[in-house]
Amino acid sequence: MFIKKYRKARDKNSSILVVGLDSDPGKIKGSKSVVEFNEHIIKETADLVCGYKINIAFYEKLGWEGYMALEETIGLIKNETNLPVILDAKRGDIGNTARAYAKAYFDRLGVDSVTVNPYMGRDAIIPFLEKGHAFILLLTSNESIGDVELHVYPRVLELAKELEKSYPERVGIVVGATRKDHISKISNASGDLSWLIPGIGAQGGDPEVLKELKRRDVVVNVSRAIIFAENVRKKAAEFRELLARQYFD
Amino acid sequence: MFIKKYRKARDKNSSILVVGLDSDPGKIKGSKSVVEFNEHIIKETADLVCGYKINIAFYEKLGWEGYMALEETIGLIKNETNLPVILDAKRGDIGNTARAYAKAYFDRLGVDSVTVNPYMGRDAIIPFLEKGHAFILLLTSNESIGDVELHVYPRVLELAKELEKSYPERVGIVVGATRKDHISKISNASGDLSWLIPGIGAQGGDPEVLKELKRRDVVVNVSRAIIFAENVRKKAAEFRELLARQYFD
Repeated sequence: MFIKKYRKARDKNSSILVVGLDSDPGKIKGSKSVVEFNEHIIKETADLVCGYKINIAFYEKLGWEGYMALEETIGLIKNETNLPVILDAKRGDIGNTARAYAKAYFDRLGVDSVTVNPYMGRDAIIPFLEKGHAFILLLTSNESIGDVELHVYPRVLELAKELEKSYPERVGIVVGATRKDHISKISNASGDLSWLIPGIGAQGGDPEVLKELKRRDVVVNVSRAIIFAENVRKKAAEFRELLARQYFD
Repeated sequence: MFIKKYRKARDKNSSILVVGLDSDPGKIKGSKSVVEFNEHIIKETADLVCGYKINIAFYEKLGWEGYMALEETIGLIKNETNLPVILDAKRGDIGNTARAYAKAYFDRLGVDSVTVNPYMGRDAIIPFLEKGHAFILLLTSNESIGDVELHVYPRVLELAKELEKSYPERVGIVVGATRKDHISKISNASGDLSWLIPGIGAQGGDPEVLKELKRRDVVVNVSRAIIFAENVRKKAAEFRELLARQYFD
């Protein structure tokens, strides 16, 4: 159960930081394999974080060997820590197909939460909630949110809250830290939804947004800025502090 | 190049049918592997179709072995036919990550087209268009389109047309055959976009919608109703005829 594992880790490690294992093989220095690279990061950071997020794209890039590295990485996290794993897959497909994805991720890979895309509506989300926790994309950290998101995100927020009633503690939203102007409004309307916040780190979002989110279930993801740092542990500790100062104080 | 391969196959085989290799291992009878099952379908249908569509969810369900079966299936289609392959992945992620997906699918798997999700805007689409053809989800065949799609699909259509100007012959739209009331309107506004139409077959959409789409680049996907039929070749031939009567006459 994602929320319980997350809260336990957050309180134990005083951290809302999730490290993103976006271990792009093109950026790994030296002769380490992706799994060795991840193993090192997990060992260095397990007491500083409240979970790991894995973006599946960087594993699919290596085809079936990448998929195997993904499975091994999830196995490592589960065997060596009690931390939850969020699979950042941003999947969205219907009925039959969404059930196949949910099986792939919750049953086969054994992750605790998955990110999902709401474009196709609730049909594409419910099959995930039947098996576990899902973070629904709401207002993301990238530039082109004016194309679609800005026009519909209040509807997506309503949908998320409606789903949360049927699937309590299983529904979250993804809101970029770069969306400062919208965050209080979303926070006031978000009820018991959990939050996944990307955009701090390489993308330059402002950690001050966390002041609006005290007492909510929040994870903040930092990927590249930590995993490709010279000193991974030091960098992760810095981010933990930066976030904790806003969130816990 | 997807469009050229598609047109050649369409004209040679007098077919706008694409068979969906949604080869759910739970539904394959007997002791055939997924790849053996697909090989049989490809042999039975290669002269009756204008391409194959593969929904990656059913392969991910088997983990890395499934991903390997996916790679082998694409290899079979490329080695034994000149037919284009559409990867139905419905991916949508930004910059860095979208580029990793585009690499995974166009460079590593070698498919000709990918379905993409427009929720995050053009940032999530352009990296695919830089490498090949993409079908953007517009108005899908499932029930819950009232949650998001109905409120924004005209904007997504404008976005698709705008992208088509910069990436000619590389941009398509996904419109469910169950959306009869919207199809003439979309067709009148769709310019040179190519169309991927699901929803005929198991989902009960009306083939008459194809009358509105003569002279456009159209593929109609049928999956379960063909691949799990008693006589695959006969069923595929029936669907080819059913579609051709509306489209070519």
